[in-house]
Formats: sequence, C-alpha cells, structure tokens
Amino acid sequence: MYAIIDAAVTCHVGYMIEGQPFVTPTACWREVDHIYWHGSAASRMLRAQSGGIPVCVTVTHIDGFVLARSAFHHSMNYRSVMALGNAEIVTDDGAKLAALQRFVERLVPGRWTTLRPTTSQELKATTVLRLSLTEASAKVRIGPPKDDAEDYDLPIWAGVVPVRVDVGRPEPDPALRVKAQAPDASQIRVG
Amino acid sequence: MYAIIDAAVTCHVGYMIEGQPFVTPTACWREVDHIYWHGSAASRMLRAQSGGIPVCVTVTHIDGFVLARSAFHHSMNYRSVMALGNAEIVTDDGAKLAALQRFVERLVPGRWTTLRPTTSQELKATTVLRLSLTEASAKVRIGPPKDDAEDYDLPIWAGVVPVRVDVGRPEPDPALRVKAQAPDASQIRVG
Repeated sequence: MYAIIDAAVTCHVGYMIEGQPFVTPTACWREVDHIYWHGSAASRMLRAQSGGIPVCVTVTHIDGFVLARSAFHHSMNYRSVMALGNAEIVTDDGAKLAALQRFVERLVPGRWTTLRPTTSQELKATTVLRLSLTEASAKVRIGPPKDDAEDYDLPIWAGVVPVRVDVGRPEPDPALRVKAQAPDASQIRVG
Repeated sequence: MYAIIDAAVTCHVGYMIEGQPFVTPTACWREVDHIYWHGSAASRMLRAQSGGIPVCVTVTHIDGFVLARSAFHHSMNYRSVMALGNAEIVTDDGAKLAALQRFVERLVPGRWTTLRPTTSQELKATTVLRLSLTEASAKVRIGPPKDDAEDYDLPIWAGVVPVRVDVGRPEPDPALRVKAQAPDASQIRVG
C-alpha cells in the first residue's frame, strides 16, 4: 500500500458540502502511516475536508488496457489505494514546515535547500491536512486478460496495452534570468 | 471541457454510502453531453452511485510540475473537469450495448467488430451509468511559475517538468493461440 502511494504525486479527495459529494484532485505525499495533502488556508474545499466529517482519499495508477476476446472481459491493469476517515489539520508550524519540505523533496530531491525560504505569512496561508492510513485498502490488477475457456480459439488478438507516466525534459521558465542547474528529471518518480 | 474528458480513459467517481464518501477510479467515456461509466450489476458501488443521490465525477490530467523560486509558488499544470448531479442507469438494452460499443471503440478504434459478440447475460450483468454534463466545470493551469517579483533575481532554477501519459507496445496474451493483428498503439489516445 505504501509503495502505491509513494509512486503517486496526486490523489483524489472525496468530501461532502451540504449533501453533495465533491472529488478534488490534489498533490499528495506519505509520511509514515499518514497521507498528506495541502492547499490554500482560504479554500472552502480544505475547510470542508477538515470539518470533522469523513473523507476518502484515493490514489490510482493506470498500468494498462486489458484487451480480451469479448467486450465483457476487457479490463484495466491498475494499482489503487483508498483511505477513509477524518482528516486532521497539521497545526504546529514546525511540523507543517517539515511536512512541506518533505513534499518538495519527494517531488524533486535536493530542491528544498535551493529555494527562497518560506515566510511565516506563506506558512499561515497554507493548510496541511493528513489522513491516517489505518482504514485503507489497496486494489491491484495485473496480467493478461481472463477469457471464457471457449473463446481462446477465436481469431482475436488479446493482451495488454501498457500505459505509463513519464517525466519529460525540464522546460526553463522563459523569465529565468540566472544560470542555475535544472533538476535531474531522472530523479523524479511518478507512476 | 469535452476535450479534457475525451482525452481521459478514467475518472474518479465520488458518492456516499451511509455518510461516508467514497472515491472510486473507473473507466469513462463521453457521448454528446453525458459522461458514461460502467461496472458489474452486482456492485454495491454502482448501486450507491445510481441511488438517486448526488455524485461527483472528476476527470484529471497532470501535465507538469511547476517549480518556482519559493516552495509557496510551486504548483502543477493540469486539466480537470468536475461534474455534479444524479447519475442515471442506461436501462434500454440497445442503448446500453451501443454505449459499450462506443466505449470499446474509443479505447481501441476498430476493435468492437473483431470481438466475440456480447451475450444477453453479459449485458444483464453490466450496469452502464451516465451523468449529464450540465452542472460541470473545468479547471486548467498551464505555463511557467508565477513568482514574487523580487524572487526572479535569485539564483534558483525555475520552470516546468512536463508529465505525460504514454501507451507502450501491446503485449500479447501468453495464452494467445491464434495469429491476429495486434492493435495499433498509435491509435490509442490517452492523456
């Protein structure tokens, strides 16, 4: 379960506002037995997610299209984790800053110390949420299609079309005025 | 909004069961002004999604990591659509079969007619849901980071690390006994 979360950079958070479910994509990271995400302290969405009502955080990787001999047995290969519970706000400033540091470092190893330091105003304007992975489950499908026994002799191609997420060559900000080393894209883990 | 949905193969569906939100990843496709998904007729999840209570369907593409000069201005480039409302079950068998055909054809153009035909039992065991895109909104971020004016002279690399989804070479089912043409991966649109 941890490996599935650690391979992900984003999750989908489900929460309720006045009887309507919402599903918001957001960046995420794991620390020990919690999944973390963050956003603007002014966000209605984050306030709803931290209001003491249950949320659901889902992490998904699509790994392939499974093409079977019948439409019915078509499927997808995937890895996913679903975590349920009440999210909590990380209130301690030190813990919050440390969590944000780990997020940046997870995204681009070594980047945090190169950055202009975070101000107390920026920290105040940011809400960090976390959800325990106590009530969580993983679902995984791998491998070729499973067809009906009598269908294997049909003249139909079957197999898997793999899907993968790739990171490309870093594109410098056109406003970059200084000489600085671009991050090493090979160090960035996605999928 | 349609272009964002049409580039996607999966969505995340948010729904409630006894006060707990759930977010389930599933395959999706669009027809005119509805987004469609499907699953087992026996699924508790699909029953909950079609029970006349509001759902949320979110489609997300992550396009890049936006690396700014401060942690605070880091961001992601993305395209997403969120649709709200009550899902409806496609009850008419002809409409259901046509919808499944369009799904397979969207995934792998030309594949449907090569398949062993769908049986009435299979059709009965499948639930097709759809949600109107009337109450839907798109959110998109593109382009380089937006830093604080005074940070542009700092000796920090800034820019975008692009992220993309790719389809690989089709992997034949090891149980493939027949000669059959593999699908043309270049025809498969993802991301």
